[in-house]
Amino acid sequence: MIALAVVLAVPALAQRPIPGWTKVSETALPFRQYPRVDAANQIYWRLYAPKAENVYVDCRGQIPMQKDPDGWWYATSRPMAVGFHFYHFVVDGVTVTDPDCDVFDGRYGRSAAAEIPEGPEGDYYRTQNVPHGMVREVRYWSEYEQQWRRAMVYTPAEYELAKNARKKYPVLYLQHGMSEDEGSWPKQGRVGNIMDNLIAAGECKPMIVVMNSGNCGIRSGTPGVDFNAWAASFEPVLIQDIIPMVEKEFRALTGRENRAMAGLSWGGKQTLDIAMSHPDLFSYVGLFSAATNVREDQFDTAYNGIFADAAAFNKKFHYFFIGLGTEERMSSAGLSERLTAHGINNTFYSSEGTDHEWLTWRRFLKEFVPHLF
Amino acid sequence: MIALAVVLAVPALAQRPIPGWTKVSETALPFRQYPRVDAANQIYWRLYAPKAENVYVDCRGQIPMQKDPDGWWYATSRPMAVGFHFYHFVVDGVTVTDPDCDVFDGRYGRSAAAEIPEGPEGDYYRTQNVPHGMVREVRYWSEYEQQWRRAMVYTPAEYELAKNARKKYPVLYLQHGMSEDEGSWPKQGRVGNIMDNLIAAGECKPMIVVMNSGNCGIRSGTPGVDFNAWAASFEPVLIQDIIPMVEKEFRALTGRENRAMAGLSWGGKQTLDIAMSHPDLFSYVGLFSAATNVREDQFDTAYNGIFADAAAFNKKFHYFFIGLGTEERMSSAGLSERLTAHGINNTFYSSEGTDHEWLTWRRFLKEFVPHLF
Repeated sequence: MIALAVVLAVPALAQRPIPGWTKVSETALPFRQYPRVDAANQIYWRLYAPKAENVYVDCRGQIPMQKDPDGWWYATSRPMAVGFHFYHFVVDGVTVTDPDCDVFDGRYGRSAAAEIPEGPEGDYYRTQNVPHGMVREVRYWSEYEQQWRRAMVYTPAEYELAKNARKKYPVLYLQHGMSEDEGSWPKQGRVGNIMDNLIAAGECKPMIVVMNSGNCGIRSGTPGVDFNAWAASFEPVLIQDIIPMVEKEFRALTGRENRAMAGLSWGGKQTLDIAMSHPDLFSYVGLFSAATNVREDQFDTAYNGIFADAAAFNKKFHYFFIGLGTEERMSSAGLSERLTAHGINNTFYSSEGTDHEWLTWRRFLKEFVPHLF
Repeated sequence: MIALAVVLAVPALAQRPIPGWTKVSETALPFRQYPRVDAANQIYWRLYAPKAENVYVDCRGQIPMQKDPDGWWYATSRPMAVGFHFYHFVVDGVTVTDPDCDVFDGRYGRSAAAEIPEGPEGDYYRTQNVPHGMVREVRYWSEYEQQWRRAMVYTPAEYELAKNARKKYPVLYLQHGMSEDEGSWPKQGRVGNIMDNLIAAGECKPMIVVMNSGNCGIRSGTPGVDFNAWAASFEPVLIQDIIPMVEKEFRALTGRENRAMAGLSWGGKQTLDIAMSHPDLFSYVGLFSAATNVREDQFDTAYNGIFADAAAFNKKFHYFFIGLGTEERMSSAGLSERLTAHGINNTFYSSEGTDHEWLTWRRFLKEFVPHLF
């Protein structure tokens, strides 16, 4: 007698056969047949809702679902940009998480997603037969927030080896986007696989990667309210609480030469704001589809005038990365050209065919970290 | 312009005021007001479903929800057993995960849950100001399964200290129940907090705790089919793949004197089956609400007759723990008495007032580990 056993009721009526040209999305839970994807980058969904009158999928737009007589609803997307796409069902106005799908930290909660796979060019973010580092869950006290917080910290495989027991490593602080949290990079960002594969190939230095929730100051408001202040509330937590914790709990090298910061979207704004306000702390910066820019008329005064002396800036920052996907529209568009026009060294990387989603950011991480330390 | 920002539509009609005598469940997502709990151990739920005709909560039975004119549905549970309770909504026949709640690995997927808190007696599983170990996500190749798997591995705080760089630790292999996976013990089981607090108090030895999915052989069938064979398919993965990986990747002591195995429910059956079949591998055993027993007429023959010689058994196994909650009915009821009647030393622990749920198993872990190693 197993009290926990929950067997989902499956109706006896004949169901649509599985489309033979599709395969199960890698985001589906074990044993499940949906969501599915095909070679044309279309996503296939299914949901049992026998009494519902109107059902659609919310996945970069509304995709109506069609009902079969047996109570199952089906939908197929248009051909999508390759990569990772959050979605949910809306059943007569109710948000429904696909019970067949794993969930990911995003959309201000736990959301299903489908992944349109790449071919061998995606091997860099897949688990390979190389030495594997570990992503560790770390609890730390935030004096600023007056609460316990959780960091996710990647350490490289060699960190565990007895011969390296006294070796110290440089640190990348890596931020998620709005509506996400510290669980996003390790899971859909595939940080462990990307770092393992690059390190094993000798393409980047072994380093520690520290991922934290940038959602601070939550007692002062709700998401979307006071965008700038909300973003800024992460700064004291990072500087006063997180960096000292990392340099105490891990074998971390200290000093600005050994610290990088990068972030995506809203986390890209946090990265620019924090790194430019604290050039004493970081010497490498990555802006991944960043939700920020620097206005031309404020160029010489922004961040205490840090851009005004290009030669000094270029000496101080060893690598300044700006990335955008070709299918997205973000406020950091044009930032690279503006920096260049002012003599500020930076590297712009365009992610071909990808939208404001995680494949874009996996690519940026892969392009960014080989230039660090 | 933040493409990822998803703001949930909140209707303008006046909503029911928050009941003042309740508080938000610790399982709710940040910013959310529901689910809630009160001092009478009742759970309060809310869901927006303006067009739905029939909505209930599935939480140890069906609890009908009532609709307000503004489209919000509400329900309050009966007084529940203290602890952790999975639930989902059923909206006109559709399973709906509460969008206000975090999700946990269970119910064959990702399920919401509410937690009815204990008072100070629950401090042992809460985050305290003590040295914190880490739960690490580890990827390993399973030769038996021919696929990559994920282990969650707790290492104690002192594991990181330079002075312990050559110190090795004993290992507890800890299994989840049916419908759950390797993410269950670290999250709702609160393994990190429980171990940290016990180690800091000097109540148990520093040890490594290894948590894996016991769901193996999944290519051979679906959940619920061939219960015994499905449970048994974990044995070769544990013995051939996991134990060697742990003893290679971690500073783990080897040999049966330094290994314990415990599991809950279906994982308790796996624990009894594996440990009794391999007395060369383990010397400590924990059965937490185990879904198993040993029939009287098979007592002398089960597991190659290991129980037939009580004196030899008692010499070999240093601690044999059996736990049950007072509010649950499991097949291992009576096993302790039967073992005792046959002269087999064992410790029975009854969890007062708890059901087949995670508070029961947190308590068992707390009672079990002080007797190890």
